[in-house]
Amino acid sequence: MISIYPLAGIPEIAHGTDLSAEILAGCDRAGLQLHDEDIVVVTHKVVSKAEGRTAQVLTDADYRDVISAEATDIIRRRGDLVITRTRHGFICANAAVDRSNTPEGVAVLLPVDPDSSAHGIRRALERSTGARLGVLITDTFGRAWRRGQTDVAIGISGVVAVLDLRGTTDSEGRELMATEVAVADELAAAADLVMGKATAIPVAVVRGAGLLGEGRVRDLVRDPQEDLFL
Amino acid sequence: MISIYPLAGIPEIAHGTDLSAEILAGCDRAGLQLHDEDIVVVTHKVVSKAEGRTAQVLTDADYRDVISAEATDIIRRRGDLVITRTRHGFICANAAVDRSNTPEGVAVLLPVDPDSSAHGIRRALERSTGARLGVLITDTFGRAWRRGQTDVAIGISGVVAVLDLRGTTDSEGRELMATEVAVADELAAAADLVMGKATAIPVAVVRGAGLLGEGRVRDLVRDPQEDLFL
Repeated sequence: MISIYPLAGIPEIAHGTDLSAEILAGCDRAGLQLHDEDIVVVTHKVVSKAEGRTAQVLTDADYRDVISAEATDIIRRRGDLVITRTRHGFICANAAVDRSNTPEGVAVLLPVDPDSSAHGIRRALERSTGARLGVLITDTFGRAWRRGQTDVAIGISGVVAVLDLRGTTDSEGRELMATEVAVADELAAAADLVMGKATAIPVAVVRGAGLLGEGRVRDLVRDPQEDLFL
Repeated sequence: MISIYPLAGIPEIAHGTDLSAEILAGCDRAGLQLHDEDIVVVTHKVVSKAEGRTAQVLTDADYRDVISAEATDIIRRRGDLVITRTRHGFICANAAVDRSNTPEGVAVLLPVDPDSSAHGIRRALERSTGARLGVLITDTFGRAWRRGQTDVAIGISGVVAVLDLRGTTDSEGRELMATEVAVADELAAAADLVMGKATAIPVAVVRGAGLLGEGRVRDLVRDPQEDLFL
């Protein structure tokens, strides 16, 4: 059984806010004590705000400039919407530059090194609790072929990224067909179910999934050269 | 809080097996009574087996023939792997024809009308329990741009497919950027975390997500003409 707990009541995060302290306060409010193997899932927005990864965006032209600075490639463009590659290798709308749920005139960027951001949060939470934890940082991305966005992992510390079942056989001894499961993205999607979008729940705790490991977010980035889904 | 319960011990399903009876027996074994708003997530494989949606596949040539019959389009081909469009509009490997976790010489196809399959299971479970339920049928698909497969919804009854937040404003009154959340796919991904791949857990119950509604799986199929992620 897996349980997913939302951490409500986390206040507005500013540059320099101690995010791990706010996460622990959120756990206290929820009556939740972090255990070994809990995975703490954090939306990138509060991580970026705590790190000061924001930009002043007063006009649409400013917004376009910030997107251009954050993108390494433009994949497609339609009107104001651009599908971009970020320097992390992520393919997403508007280089993930986000003006919703931000103070007026402020856009939130992705962390520069999201795995490192996740690692910092994990270390602080582990020091405070003594528990062996995983941390995922997430964002909401659209995707090819299917409508709607889903949350995906954009930063990983202490969690498996892709569970490799190649060579694993089924109950009949035949090799499994679906052999590399993007569990970090499945965890991100699961956590989003308690986070909502309009409500301010930026952190969730997933308990009972197992899946602690040494994943890196680059494990989730597919080389376009070998991408048959394009 | 969301809880996800695996239903273990479900026996091999054959053509004509009463799948909803097996699901209820699995709930009993898990000490789980279905409640209003529970969402029952079922891997397509047991649904297709119960419906007799299987094909005899003795050779690789047979396998290719079945894939050709199931696919309406070939998107890409590399060696034995083809990325296909199914008649439902899904883009997936090998037209979702699956030879793992099946008896020797048998391949499992997708249900002909997965929403209808989900509806039949839901009606039977609701009649037996008196609870108002949702049912999702899932499969494991690869995707563009990101490595690894995730479980997605391929059949829906009584559950929201895409949660439309367009027009919803954030805490600052600004319109939300990520506005159409593919919650059926997020539920499928969440359920996969307890199902595993090598273990025979074909059903999970998601409790506490809300999200009952009138989604159809075609709500998740994006028109390639408007797909900027390609």
